[in-house]
Amino acid sequence: MTDNISADRLRLFIERIERLEEEKRGIADDIKDVFAEAKATGFDAKAMRVVIRLRRMEKHHRDEMDAIVDTYRAALGMA
Amino acid sequence: MTDNISADRLRLFIERIERLEEEKRGIADDIKDVFAEAKATGFDAKAMRVVIRLRRMEKHHRDEMDAIVDTYRAALGMA
Amino acid sequence: MTDNISADRLRLFIERIERLEEEKRGIADDIKDVFAEAKATGFDAKAMRVVIRLRRMEKHHRDEMDAIVDTYRAALGMA
Amino acid sequence: MTDNISADRLRLFIERIERLEEEKRGIADDIKDVFAEAKATGFDAKAMRVVIRLRRMEKHHRDEMDAIVDTYRAALGMA
Repeated sequence: MTDNISADRLRLFIERIERLEEEKRGIADDIKDVFAEAKATGFDAKAMRVVIRLRRMEKHHRDEMDAIVDTYRAALGMA
Repeated sequence: MTDNISADRLRLFIERIERLEEEKRGIADDIKDVFAEAKATGFDAKAMRVVIRLRRMEKHHRDEMDAIVDTYRAALGMA
Repeated sequence: MTDNISADRLRLFIERIERLEEEKRGIADDIKDVFAEAKATGFDAKAMRVVIRLRRMEKHHRDEMDAIVDTYRAALGMA
Repeated sequence: MTDNISADRLRLFIERIERLEEEKRGIADDIKDVFAEAKATGFDAKAMRVVIRLRRMEKHHRDEMDAIVDTYRAALGMA
């Protein structure tokens, strides 16, 4: 790096990213903790994940997907 | 690497892994092609993925998960 | 869900996880923004990621890895 | 599904994808086996992965990346 200014700027960018990644890892751990807490209370983590994924969908889209999946399950003898 | 034998052995391992990774990428492309073909026929790729994931589960486990998810959806007003 | 208490508790767990996942997505976007800012300043995002990955390693471990990779590169004619 | 033909067609697509996914999992296991074999021979799996990733790059691109990473490492006191 030809001059110190660029080196300092690079360091600032790198350290900003590292702090954000650290924060992200912290939140990922918090999510794990909440699932563990729910599990200890008797809830099923896998089923909770399915429901969370469904809640992210618009209701009309979710209803449409439900209908298609049910149709495919029936067609494949999985109803 | 102190001697040519190790260098050759390393190359053999690396090339074996590269061939396998190449093969794996080829199959991933084939899977994409089948989904595209199904989509062109009018099937819904996302719903197919849900059904394929469900088919990987044992029937009794799948029934249990269905029941729990339905219970949670009802409890959250998503039935 | 037999009683309202469990339904409420499930909702609380689900909403806590959703808020944390929302926060995590926000931070992932922030990370992307910083890389974009660095790129606009003339830095190379891929090289920055390599350096960030290396900085996560203990120095002695990093030096050891450097030495092994250099040896392997030389053995494979990639020096 | 209104008629049996679509149900059969859906089943065929699903079974083709399942066979390909099975094949892909098999190859992923083979890759793990080769790494384990190399490790048992004394090679370092992580360093091998770094080298394999570098070999996937065009030589001129690899040389360019090497130069940038070295510059950044020097700028950050990681040379």
